[in-house]
Amino acid sequence: AGADNDLYINQAIVFIEDAIQYRSINHRVDSKSLWLYRWYYSRTCQWILSLTITVILALAFIEEPSSLTVTSDVRFRLPAWNPPCGLTESMELLCFLVFVADVSVKSYLIGWKEFWKNKWLMAYILTLIVSLTDWIVSLSFFCKESVRIRRILRPFFLLQNSSMMKKTLKSINSTLPEMASVVLLLAVHLSLFTMFAMLLFARTKDNQQDKEWVVYFRNLPDSLTSLLVLLTTANNPDVMIPAYSKNRAYSIFFILFTVLGNLFLMNLLTAIIYNQFRGYLLKSVQSSLFRRRLGIRAAFEVLSSLKETPASAQQSCVSVGALLQVLQKAEMDSRCKQAIMRSLKMCSCDQLSAAQFQKLFEELDKDAIKQHPPSPEYQSHFMQKMQFAFGHPYFGYLGNVVALANIISICVVLVMDADKQPSERDDFFLGAINCFFILYYLLEMLLKILAMGLKRYLSYPSNRFDGLLTVILLILEIATFAVYGFPHPGWRPEFMGLLSLWDMVRLVNMLIVFRFLRIIPNMKFMALVVTTLLDLVKNLRAFAGILVVVFYAFAITGIMLFKGAVVPLGNTSSKAELTGSCVDIKVLYFKEKNVISWCSAHFQAEVIYCLLSVLCVHPICRWAKIYFVAWWLISSVIWVNLFVALLLENFIHKWDRRCQRESLSDIEYQRTVELMFRDVLEEPTEEELMEKLHQHPHLQLCR
Amino acid sequence: AGADNDLYINQAIVFIEDAIQYRSINHRVDSKSLWLYRWYYSRTCQWILSLTITVILALAFIEEPSSLTVTSDVRFRLPAWNPPCGLTESMELLCFLVFVADVSVKSYLIGWKEFWKNKWLMAYILTLIVSLTDWIVSLSFFCKESVRIRRILRPFFLLQNSSMMKKTLKSINSTLPEMASVVLLLAVHLSLFTMFAMLLFARTKDNQQDKEWVVYFRNLPDSLTSLLVLLTTANNPDVMIPAYSKNRAYSIFFILFTVLGNLFLMNLLTAIIYNQFRGYLLKSVQSSLFRRRLGIRAAFEVLSSLKETPASAQQSCVSVGALLQVLQKAEMDSRCKQAIMRSLKMCSCDQLSAAQFQKLFEELDKDAIKQHPPSPEYQSHFMQKMQFAFGHPYFGYLGNVVALANIISICVVLVMDADKQPSERDDFFLGAINCFFILYYLLEMLLKILAMGLKRYLSYPSNRFDGLLTVILLILEIATFAVYGFPHPGWRPEFMGLLSLWDMVRLVNMLIVFRFLRIIPNMKFMALVVTTLLDLVKNLRAFAGILVVVFYAFAITGIMLFKGAVVPLGNTSSKAELTGSCVDIKVLYFKEKNVISWCSAHFQAEVIYCLLSVLCVHPICRWAKIYFVAWWLISSVIWVNLFVALLLENFIHKWDRRCQRESLSDIEYQRTVELMFRDVLEEPTEEELMEKLHQHPHLQLCR
Repeated sequence: AGADNDLYINQAIVFIEDAIQYRSINHRVDSKSLWLYRWYYSRTCQWILSLTITVILALAFIEEPSSLTVTSDVRFRLPAWNPPCGLTESMELLCFLVFVADVSVKSYLIGWKEFWKNKWLMAYILTLIVSLTDWIVSLSFFCKESVRIRRILRPFFLLQNSSMMKKTLKSINSTLPEMASVVLLLAVHLSLFTMFAMLLFARTKDNQQDKEWVVYFRNLPDSLTSLLVLLTTANNPDVMIPAYSKNRAYSIFFILFTVLGNLFLMNLLTAIIYNQFRGYLLKSVQSSLFRRRLGIRAAFEVLSSLKETPASAQQSCVSVGALLQVLQKAEMDSRCKQAIMRSLKMCSCDQLSAAQFQKLFEELDKDAIKQHPPSPEYQSHFMQKMQFAFGHPYFGYLGNVVALANIISICVVLVMDADKQPSERDDFFLGAINCFFILYYLLEMLLKILAMGLKRYLSYPSNRFDGLLTVILLILEIATFAVYGFPHPGWRPEFMGLLSLWDMVRLVNMLIVFRFLRIIPNMKFMALVVTTLLDLVKNLRAFAGILVVVFYAFAITGIMLFKGAVVPLGNTSSKAELTGSCVDIKVLYFKEKNVISWCSAHFQAEVIYCLLSVLCVHPICRWAKIYFVAWWLISSVIWVNLFVALLLENFIHKWDRRCQRESLSDIEYQRTVELMFRDVLEEPTEEELMEKLHQHPHLQLCR
Repeated sequence: AGADNDLYINQAIVFIEDAIQYRSINHRVDSKSLWLYRWYYSRTCQWILSLTITVILALAFIEEPSSLTVTSDVRFRLPAWNPPCGLTESMELLCFLVFVADVSVKSYLIGWKEFWKNKWLMAYILTLIVSLTDWIVSLSFFCKESVRIRRILRPFFLLQNSSMMKKTLKSINSTLPEMASVVLLLAVHLSLFTMFAMLLFARTKDNQQDKEWVVYFRNLPDSLTSLLVLLTTANNPDVMIPAYSKNRAYSIFFILFTVLGNLFLMNLLTAIIYNQFRGYLLKSVQSSLFRRRLGIRAAFEVLSSLKETPASAQQSCVSVGALLQVLQKAEMDSRCKQAIMRSLKMCSCDQLSAAQFQKLFEELDKDAIKQHPPSPEYQSHFMQKMQFAFGHPYFGYLGNVVALANIISICVVLVMDADKQPSERDDFFLGAINCFFILYYLLEMLLKILAMGLKRYLSYPSNRFDGLLTVILLILEIATFAVYGFPHPGWRPEFMGLLSLWDMVRLVNMLIVFRFLRIIPNMKFMALVVTTLLDLVKNLRAFAGILVVVFYAFAITGIMLFKGAVVPLGNTSSKAELTGSCVDIKVLYFKEKNVISWCSAHFQAEVIYCLLSVLCVHPICRWAKIYFVAWWLISSVIWVNLFVALLLENFIHKWDRRCQRESLSDIEYQRTVELMFRDVLEEPTEEELMEKLHQHPHLQLCR
């Protein structure tokens, strides 16, 4: 019976931990499995798993067709370092072994029956098998093989490890039918207008007159491309200029196309995605809530089967002692744990009913209300006055004014020095004002710490930001003085050592520019906007993850498709002048999958246009077109719209909340997607919970 | 007493008409004023007013710096026709006289007290005074004066005449503070990054290395412009290429700028506008509803003071006879009138209480349910079978398949003929298939008319569209045959007469392309999307009006600012090659305010960039920059976002409605902004109505 009791306690601990993490409770519940389960979800294990995923994704940066060089210009750059065959491969094997362990533990824990229903796990195993096969093939060719499928599959490991990303992907997946309708409508729109354009701008006898035909509508693929690019607005006035020069009325065609396609259909896509996505996000958050309630209920049920509870009671209930035992062992946020303990002590009863039990854990759903530690209390009258003066908001405002003055003075120096040769510049003034302002910032920081006490000072994020910047500025300034001496008129030292003075001064000034941002929280509406943006960044992690997955897959595919398609500018002599900048961008795109991919969502319209026009002299033209149209659709159209949907959702909820709680603006809330929807969420009923519990594949409840 | 009764009846008529048109009832209510009021709001008067507004706006197309020529190319085009001095001026005077009459009647009708409160009327009078003064100045200079202020003021006449536009403007006005915050944030973002860029891309000693500085960040205005244009994504990859070539890490700066500015702040603007605008649109619709209820209540009150009502009744009430009298004289939709009459007859009582009276007029708020006339009933068995066969949806589907086949065949011919010289083409195949398909369409139309009867056939908009296209196609085809004979192999007639064959065939084919659109209503989701778009167009009139106002004002300002700044390409010799297309666009912009303005919202990013780079060699550079930044902010940022907000609103309401009424999809609703919000609107209470009635400046109620 004691062993049984231990098992029940352990089960309850795991169920409560599941509830906290919004995990499913459908896993094995015998003693050994529970140990394995807690071990698997321990911080160390999860950290190792994350590290493995990071490593396998980062491998692309040093693998063979990599180009992690300083310059992107193919003419100047040195050949990138190629690791010897077997180095990256052995790292890959290590990663695969970790993944094999991961998938086996996961499969074992959910049990065979559940395993067959779980498509993500099946896909995981399939991916691993394909990757390992590809790895063996790769080694047997001594790394000389041309196609590596496993590199495209890599982002899957990132995807399958995050439940939030899986949920988001599910939401995106369910909006696909509606998106497909609009994309179909866009396709119909495009094809109708293409036919129309081909009829309108057909070849005429007068060769002078059909400039439009020659450049943009020579044949079907050309016409389609011209109009598709017009849809991205990249070739916007150019495409209509020849026709417009001939007759103004031709512009009606282009206006109609742009208004219908760009203004109506593209924005309709936004509306549809917003509309669909809103519903599904709410739904997924609702299912998270259900998981939490289910976990807590399961914990209650197993605790109520403990032998120590009196059998006489009609209703099942849980002794407070058992719960305390569970709480002490469970891993959870210390604030929540203390709050639950406190309310458990305040509740005088000895036994808890299911409703009371559930209510105790509602603390988990609450926003963390941040309380700042109190200011120190000084005895001296002088110190109290000092504290009042430097703890007053006006002192903060003075700091903002000084920061503004700093910005303006830097600006003035910049404008004055803009056109001067470096040798003509006199850095004395800049050095002097930097010195003065940094001293002021240091003084301000010290006085604030005096007034507020170090703990209270550090509890405000804005102060931490200020303090950190001040310290960095101070160190840089001292380093400058150490190397070049104090500023004096005509102070214009030459480049010295690793980091030149000019670089140093620039660095210091840049940091001061950032300090100016402290003004923002003092403006009411701007503060709202900025907090919305910060919230958005928190909620955006799942999105960003999916974006990384898509970008990575596209980058690897692009490298594979266009390997060798780019030749250094020296080789192509005549066309080089014309397509100079385009080739540069092409270089960015195909050979450099690294940093640049991150910003491509916005670069795309321009780049596609540029690339399509350049690539089409090359035999791989068709492939490039399909690749870039797919890229444009996914990265720009769909992803940007999803982003807008999330932003709209966030902002509108935030705004409504602001209107409700205008008075409570002092309290800082820490909000997540789950909390944003709290007012709208429905609590699951007892029947639903019990039905779900009885369907549990491994847990046999007594009743 | 009889005269009193007549007055009451007339008042009731006018109040009910006010209610129908959502007009304010705060006007004079004596007999003569009522006659003037009904005359002023009669169709003829309003039509004359609209015509006058159209004429005064259209004057810009023929006035002096106009360029209504066929080609837009400054090298080839003939000088535009300049009307003699006094022609446009006398037309203007006529228009002004109409406006003077309009403003006097309006001012008289609302009374002096109200006049002083009405800012729109004051502005109207002020505009008229300024315009007339400017007109006199203009005539006294014999039309040689350089600045005509009255031309910029013209769009005001359009604005003040539409209550919907005034409401929308009010909504836009009230979102301005929030927009200003984000624009301020954008400005801070821009200026911080500009400073940052100037520090980062400062001039170095090595001239080879500072390409970035030379081209984009030479001084403060240049840097600001580069980054502002980057915000419009027009110079997107170009601006970072020199720096990126030097060191990949520089791209982080541009990525940060683009992500923060373009992805976050710009989309936040969308969110804010959507959020704010949603509320205000609802509010303005709510005030429309209040006006309607108030008008009806006012009619009830005046009717209840009629002498014929029994004084004994406790509650005030209205006799059915008086109401019938009012209804017969009031101008309203005949469907509504009949519906109200019908329910009045069904109601057996003799007296109506206020609630009953209000309820009668709820018919006005209802959607018009369109009923199609029945099909003819044929006696003959054969005819009945025919009717079944050709009235069946499958026959419609067959028509769609044929239309698709037609499109595909035209497409094939187009692709085959794309590269051929006009002299090598054989038009026989195209002529033959056109002939066949047009015959099929004709047959289809006739059979459908046979099956459905002409009335039922015409009651469907899709049939009207089909029928009209078929008739036009038939006429064009007969004309082709009459001129060139029937198609035969080698049929390749030369250009003849006014409209060449090739033009004719192209015209026929273009119309067939349009016929393909009939497929859309057969697809469920696409039908929803298309009806949303059509609804949007209806609700968009007020927006479009404001857009016209803004475009007009900008075009006139542009003409005035940049008069003479554009010289034909021949004069500028060396720069002509480089800036060829840019000058063309500049020509579009400054000298041509006509059609092209309509599409500029989307052309802007490109055009601004192009223009800024060209204009800055010219002394008016600063003005041009300010002008175009203002233009970009208003036309692109604000207007496009408002459009997105409206589209989101429409689509989400439509979608919710579709989910509710999936079953009623057969019935076609005619929806307006007012009806869209009906579920959310609050009915005004009796107290509110009576309070407002007692505040009426001209109406003295008995109680």
